Amino acid sequence: MTDFDEAAGELAATGRRFDARGWVLGTSGNFSTVVAHSPLRIAITRSGVHKGALAPADVIELDGTGAILRGGGGPSAETALHLELIASRAAGAVMHTHSIWATFLSDRGAEAGGIAIEGYEMLKGLAGVRTHEHREWIPVLENDQDMLRLSGVVRRVLLDHPACHAFLLRRHGLYTWGATLQDAVRHVEILEFLLESVGRARYGAARPEEAEPWRS
Amino acid sequence: MTDFDEAAGELAATGRRFDARGWVLGTSGNFSTVVAHSPLRIAITRSGVHKGALAPADVIELDGTGAILRGGGGPSAETALHLELIASRAAGAVMHTHSIWATFLSDRGAEAGGIAIEGYEMLKGLAGVRTHEHREWIPVLENDQDMLRLSGVVRRVLLDHPACHAFLLRRHGLYTWGATLQDAVRHVEILEFLLESVGRARYGAARPEEAEPWRS
Amino acid sequence: MTDFDEAAGELAATGRRFDARGWVLGTSGNFSTVVAHSPLRIAITRSGVHKGALAPADVIELDGTGAILRGGGGPSAETALHLELIASRAAGAVMHTHSIWATFLSDRGAEAGGIAIEGYEMLKGLAGVRTHEHREWIPVLENDQDMLRLSGVVRRVLLDHPACHAFLLRRHGLYTWGATLQDAVRHVEILEFLLESVGRARYGAARPEEAEPWRS
Amino acid sequence: MTDFDEAAGELAATGRRFDARGWVLGTSGNFSTVVAHSPLRIAITRSGVHKGALAPADVIELDGTGAILRGGGGPSAETALHLELIASRAAGAVMHTHSIWATFLSDRGAEAGGIAIEGYEMLKGLAGVRTHEHREWIPVLENDQDMLRLSGVVRRVLLDHPACHAFLLRRHGLYTWGATLQDAVRHVEILEFLLESVGRARYGAARPEEAEPWRS
Repeated sequence: MTDFDEAAGELAATGRRFDARGWVLGTSGNFSTVVAHSPLRIAITRSGVHKGALAPADVIELDGTGAILRGGGGPSAETALHLELIASRAAGAVMHTHSIWATFLSDRGAEAGGIAIEGYEMLKGLAGVRTHEHREWIPVLENDQDMLRLSGVVRRVLLDHPACHAFLLRRHGLYTWGATLQDAVRHVEILEFLLESVGRARYGAARPEEAEPWRS
Repeated sequence: MTDFDEAAGELAATGRRFDARGWVLGTSGNFSTVVAHSPLRIAITRSGVHKGALAPADVIELDGTGAILRGGGGPSAETALHLELIASRAAGAVMHTHSIWATFLSDRGAEAGGIAIEGYEMLKGLAGVRTHEHREWIPVLENDQDMLRLSGVVRRVLLDHPACHAFLLRRHGLYTWGATLQDAVRHVEILEFLLESVGRARYGAARPEEAEPWRS
Repeated sequence: MTDFDEAAGELAATGRRFDARGWVLGTSGNFSTVVAHSPLRIAITRSGVHKGALAPADVIELDGTGAILRGGGGPSAETALHLELIASRAAGAVMHTHSIWATFLSDRGAEAGGIAIEGYEMLKGLAGVRTHEHREWIPVLENDQDMLRLSGVVRRVLLDHPACHAFLLRRHGLYTWGATLQDAVRHVEILEFLLESVGRARYGAARPEEAEPWRS
Repeated sequence: MTDFDEAAGELAATGRRFDARGWVLGTSGNFSTVVAHSPLRIAITRSGVHKGALAPADVIELDGTGAILRGGGGPSAETALHLELIASRAAGAVMHTHSIWATFLSDRGAEAGGIAIEGYEMLKGLAGVRTHEHREWIPVLENDQDMLRLSGVVRRVLLDHPACHAFLLRRHGLYTWGATLQDAVRHVEILEFLLESVGRARYGAARPEEAEPWRS
């Protein structure tokens, strides 16, 4: 089995896992992983396929300019963002998911330009974080169908927030990455957990004066 | 394997998938797909069966008038709506699901006659939609046990909203369709995602003045 | 395979299904089904076992007085309620589940003595219901560790509400039944759907003055 | 198969089960079980592995001082808490999970120093509890990266609350234990159920004046 075949198999397993959690409904989401570094070759999911049912033919191989080396059909429309993240963060894998809670928080955080999360033990699942007292800032960017323009905005945001592990596109979803595919997958799980936790804690009902007595 | 057998197998796989998500509890929901166009033959789920456990015998074949060509037991009680959608939208498949969030939104949108959804990237999963700036109007119709009368209402609503991809029956569920079974299944997933997103965003608690500090 | 073996297998399959939905966490819940009518013999889940991992040895056979005919370990502590329902409703199967939403609604409905549900298409999944305009009253009874006393209360409630398909024990869970095991399982799914729907609709946030505009 | 191998297999099965429920996302959570009592030997999950994909090599064996007897990689960073619980509660197994609802409640209960839960039938799933009228106090401790200091706090809390079955670390997760692995697993399920029930009941919207009429 070549490195590409192995990468394709791992992306398919990731797709089934995320589909089970409802994070890639419809044909949403896209994943990539680096197959070779020099020269750069990446495996990326094909556009328009269901991530819960990825077949080897649904993964294609690109070089560092986005040119197709192997596989048919178009690469993900968001390939430019993947290449940008691989270049600027030295990422070995990039994950883009579309969950309910990431979508919800992306909207609530749009005005402030991002979401701050701190005090959660789960933050320690993000690469390099050693304490729950860490404060993670997740930038929220306005969604844009112009990928060239959006790539430029992403580049600036990554420069402005050199410590961030992820960003949200407004009403669109989550982008995160990692040194390896395993790290990137862990980041998705950690961030989805944190976004749902923050969503329920900040936007649920107010703290009651006292607990309601259970006997009527 | 005949076209009908293949269609029946695909409807059963769809049933297992939607059942896992809780969208066809009890014996709710019904699905159809076109087997041949001229003359029209469709495969449709039998009435009163659990969609998570569809056997080949639970799918029956009808002609364009609703007459049974193959299989026993009655066709779905809502066959008239399926035939209406196949005719008026040139649909290759029709899906009817009963999720919690579709039911919730159908009630909230009843007074206004529908639900407007815009600004979500997921909208691009609907056939022909190219940008998240699209505004989708999902009509809400009052539920009715008189299928003939309801078919007439559906026909009028489809004429009034030629661009819509779906409608809701109040406190009942979602109808959507697509050029192929795969398209119709994708529409269900996209719309269920959007309905839950809109449900949580519009009917959750208000935006707080400021995020609650986590240290007490 | 004897009728008892078949019944035990079906109860185990039901357990796995309900466990996947989170309706029988811990060792909660209990199920019974009639194996023979005259004289009465029932198969019922053993006390203290996890319903998601029922083995044949976890199902025991009782006669109509609750005496053990086959199998070791004690029968469910709530056997008296099962026998009461089989006798007074001519039920072929009785299901008791402990879901989050049934627990939630049982508390909210305790003061009024029950929960009224009407206007939902899903109501038609209850035996004998022909229209969504049906009004189902689900009595809520105070929980009680004295099974003899609780059986008496159940008997009175069933007499007072001859058309009801289920009742809730407060902060405890749902009891429903059906002519066959399949009917009883369907009733669980229908009622769990309705309880979550009503829970979200009645106890979520108020209807907003207007939909929040999505552009900031 | 040795006792250790059997224990490792059971911890892996527990990991798959809890992962399916979303209670051990990322590499969160850790589990231990006693392999031999005298001298004490325990099996515990290795640090930094995904609990949904535990292989035998991801479980290591420790003696009562925390020294490694078998297996590579570090033991869980929270080993000291496991050993503390095994010693002070005579526990045969200790479970630590990170669910959304435990995290949510740990924050809401931090100021009061804990969460009181009473009136729920599910409480009877906790060892020694015989009635739903039982009042369970779940202490909430401030999270701390200094395991030695945290162990000391845990020891004091366990002395102050000799009847408690669990505690929460703030914005971190749930610790519970049991005489056997099966008991500890049941306690996780029972407590997760109760925490979600209490979370929805106390921090959802207020009881409405009257049910909203469904006809517009």
